[in-house]
Amino acid sequence: MARRGRIGEFELIARYFAPLARAFEGAGNLQSDNAFLAADPRHDLVVKTDTVVAGVHFLADESPQRVAAKALRVCLSDLAAGGATPFVYQLSLALPEHWTETWLAGFARGLAADQRRYGILLCGGDTVVTPGPLTVTITAFGRVARGKGIGRGGATAGDDLWVSGTVGDGALGLLTAQGRLPDLTTRQRGFLEDRYRLPQPRTALGHRLVGIATATADVSDGLLADAGHIADASRLAVTIERDDVPLSAGGRAAVKADPRLWANVLGGGDDYELVVAVPSRKRSALLAAASAAGIAVTRIGSFARGSGVTVTVAGRAVAAPRKGYVHF
Amino acid sequence: MARRGRIGEFELIARYFAPLARAFEGAGNLQSDNAFLAADPRHDLVVKTDTVVAGVHFLADESPQRVAAKALRVCLSDLAAGGATPFVYQLSLALPEHWTETWLAGFARGLAADQRRYGILLCGGDTVVTPGPLTVTITAFGRVARGKGIGRGGATAGDDLWVSGTVGDGALGLLTAQGRLPDLTTRQRGFLEDRYRLPQPRTALGHRLVGIATATADVSDGLLADAGHIADASRLAVTIERDDVPLSAGGRAAVKADPRLWANVLGGGDDYELVVAVPSRKRSALLAAASAAGIAVTRIGSFARGSGVTVTVAGRAVAAPRKGYVHF
Repeated sequence: MARRGRIGEFELIARYFAPLARAFEGAGNLQSDNAFLAADPRHDLVVKTDTVVAGVHFLADESPQRVAAKALRVCLSDLAAGGATPFVYQLSLALPEHWTETWLAGFARGLAADQRRYGILLCGGDTVVTPGPLTVTITAFGRVARGKGIGRGGATAGDDLWVSGTVGDGALGLLTAQGRLPDLTTRQRGFLEDRYRLPQPRTALGHRLVGIATATADVSDGLLADAGHIADASRLAVTIERDDVPLSAGGRAAVKADPRLWANVLGGGDDYELVVAVPSRKRSALLAAASAAGIAVTRIGSFARGSGVTVTVAGRAVAAPRKGYVHF
Repeated sequence: MARRGRIGEFELIARYFAPLARAFEGAGNLQSDNAFLAADPRHDLVVKTDTVVAGVHFLADESPQRVAAKALRVCLSDLAAGGATPFVYQLSLALPEHWTETWLAGFARGLAADQRRYGILLCGGDTVVTPGPLTVTITAFGRVARGKGIGRGGATAGDDLWVSGTVGDGALGLLTAQGRLPDLTTRQRGFLEDRYRLPQPRTALGHRLVGIATATADVSDGLLADAGHIADASRLAVTIERDDVPLSAGGRAAVKADPRLWANVLGGGDDYELVVAVPSRKRSALLAAASAAGIAVTRIGSFARGSGVTVTVAGRAVAAPRKGYVHF
């Protein structure tokens, strides 16, 4: 393993990062400080920056491949919510002083694997050494047809609220990784922990929502919080029927064993599913898009005049659990 | 002063950052995760990411206004080197656990002042808390006429090497701030320290170099290193006549008192001047551009077939001092 100082920044970039940028001409093989993104009259750019810190946003002992994947995918999830198809990203890597080339090589392999998986390329960035924990900032760029990007503020009263995949796995997966859900089966625990450690951004669905969804968000802060963000930005109220929320087998087992875990399922973050506002006349188009993407979608509620988030059980409002992941 | 937890992330964004993004429609008032950059067929985008860490890239006791300015300006300097006019930026802020609203308010004021100064707007980002030091990552976006961006690799044999402003002030300013140049006058020390603490990116000059410069870089790693980056990327050799390198009054006094400081002047970083390769037939155009920008430029050398960086004194090659700031 290399020690600090064994290779310089330029050699590090040439060895580990330039290969990730080779196919994007505007990156100039990372020999230039700047990336050049050619003018594209047919598309708007969608841009998102996310920072993840070791011990805060991922477990401090996480493998470098999974750190790379998590850092990238939380950004790709936002681009998917915007209806965009990702194509390049900038990487800022703040390495702790004890970094090794072994770690860096694994990190670069993780990036390379996700570049193939999502069809994206590195286009630039920065590398520094920090006395603090490993900190990774990704700025990801997607394309959406001109004027067609999807925001949070477009929902209208009467729209249905849909969600992709299953909800709550991220928060339950963190509990599992911390050894706090011992009664689940090994398989359930493995599934949930994977869901926490390795987000699966819904990039196959996001771009297909253009022209169908009136508003979208990804479930990063928690279902209630993120549905609430759409409601707030659209100046509407949203109601969610709790028992319509799609759960994985592990999620069902967890809330059956301890109903207090509904707070984690509805309020926890890190699911990286999409919550989507869709007018009822677009329902069949949504189902066709989801089918084409190979991703299940479930109707879980609706928007109405008013404000705030209401959770119902069998149609009756219940006290909502905590309102989502609090960053500070 | 606020304590940790006094305000949440959404309130923090609404109070301190949304005002900085209000005039850029694609930022959606920072209520959406994504920024939308409208298609622009006349311009390419130039993108640069830089990360600065407290105690590494700026003094740990630096004022929040100056941290904001430094973080922004090191990026704007790169955009200037690319021939671009900056217009928006993304901000990732990793706040140490003991952050206060007083600090944050000062940081936002610093951003606001530089937004006015450089005609730029915030368009999105991320805010997290870190157990490590304050870490600021800026991804800045500039526009350059389609196909006209300036990189490092375009210099040709026979081009002259020019530099803007004065060189070495950044490295000498750091020494001054550390109390290591006590023999300079108070005024000289104040000037040098300001040059280190508060970069003055040459944005007024950069966009005027389009069609004049064949290659550019900003002096962030050190004059020799950055001129060398142009030479390497252009597959050429570069020769710099040491006594043609423009120095400030403080710089002249410093190397006169201790000629060993030439190593800091030529090898140190943080000047944020532009080094520019210009064919001799474009000399008058360069001088007109510099005059229009109100920034002095000085011819300090030339490019030739070969490789590497040579420093001459009265035309004779001398041993080059250390080759520039080493990041790791």
